[in-house]
Amino acid sequence: MAANSKFAVATHILTALAHISQGGPKGSRRDAGLVSSEVVAASVNTNPVVVRRIAAELAKAGLVISHQGKGGGLELSRSPEKITLQDVYEAMGEPAVFAFNPNKPNPRCPVSKRMVEVLKPVFAQAQAGVRDRLGKIRLSDLLKEIG
Amino acid sequence: MAANSKFAVATHILTALAHISQGGPKGSRRDAGLVSSEVVAASVNTNPVVVRRIAAELAKAGLVISHQGKGGGLELSRSPEKITLQDVYEAMGEPAVFAFNPNKPNPRCPVSKRMVEVLKPVFAQAQAGVRDRLGKIRLSDLLKEIG
Repeated sequence: MAANSKFAVATHILTALAHISQGGPKGSRRDAGLVSSEVVAASVNTNPVVVRRIAAELAKAGLVISHQGKGGGLELSRSPEKITLQDVYEAMGEPAVFAFNPNKPNPRCPVSKRMVEVLKPVFAQAQAGVRDRLGKIRLSDLLKEIG
Repeated sequence: MAANSKFAVATHILTALAHISQGGPKGSRRDAGLVSSEVVAASVNTNPVVVRRIAAELAKAGLVISHQGKGGGLELSRSPEKITLQDVYEAMGEPAVFAFNPNKPNPRCPVSKRMVEVLKPVFAQAQAGVRDRLGKIRLSDLLKEIG
């Protein structure tokens, strides 16, 4: 999966977990707050393997708990009010906003030689700007938009 | 060129224009503040056609002036203190930070159906965060780093 669509899919997974786990029949998996990766995959419209791979990254970051075995499934580790989209961005390894010039530096040009070093802190600032704004959006805000 | 390396190349072009146009021999093209697209292309290590295409976008945004004909070339429209990297980002059409889930929405899932609409303002916030931070960095700051 392209690095820059992983954030959308991860956010979709978390939104689906929060939404689908609401109000299942008593004693059911959903009633226990669990959703199978197959159900989440049907929402993302992808293979359950893709969901499990991204869910594993979300679990590593402490946003999701994965219950193995029969009757198992995925659940949010905490309430949607306590998960920000900055958490999701960081869980995905903060995908870079920009790429460097794909051409090799020209060693005879003083600008070309230094450009990667000069741009590194610029790119880091761009990521920091993304974190700033995503930190103000909660998963619960997205749930309200789903209705 | 991948959308996300255009910003790096555009910033490189502007930095090269500012740096190379400093202190050419009297009466020379450089002394007049002009740099040919071939010289800029040697710095970026790409084809002059690529430089001219991006320079045309920078000119459209008012950051660069392109002088046609013999002895012509590119020059900055204003001093490097008055160009921010937000100007460059906007000149490149504010490349998106994230991509949407490449799979089609599942029309039977209330989350899936709404996800693109829910994520649109989130993606716009990410771009706004990039603008915020890039607006604080001037082309003159990069020039200092080149030395």
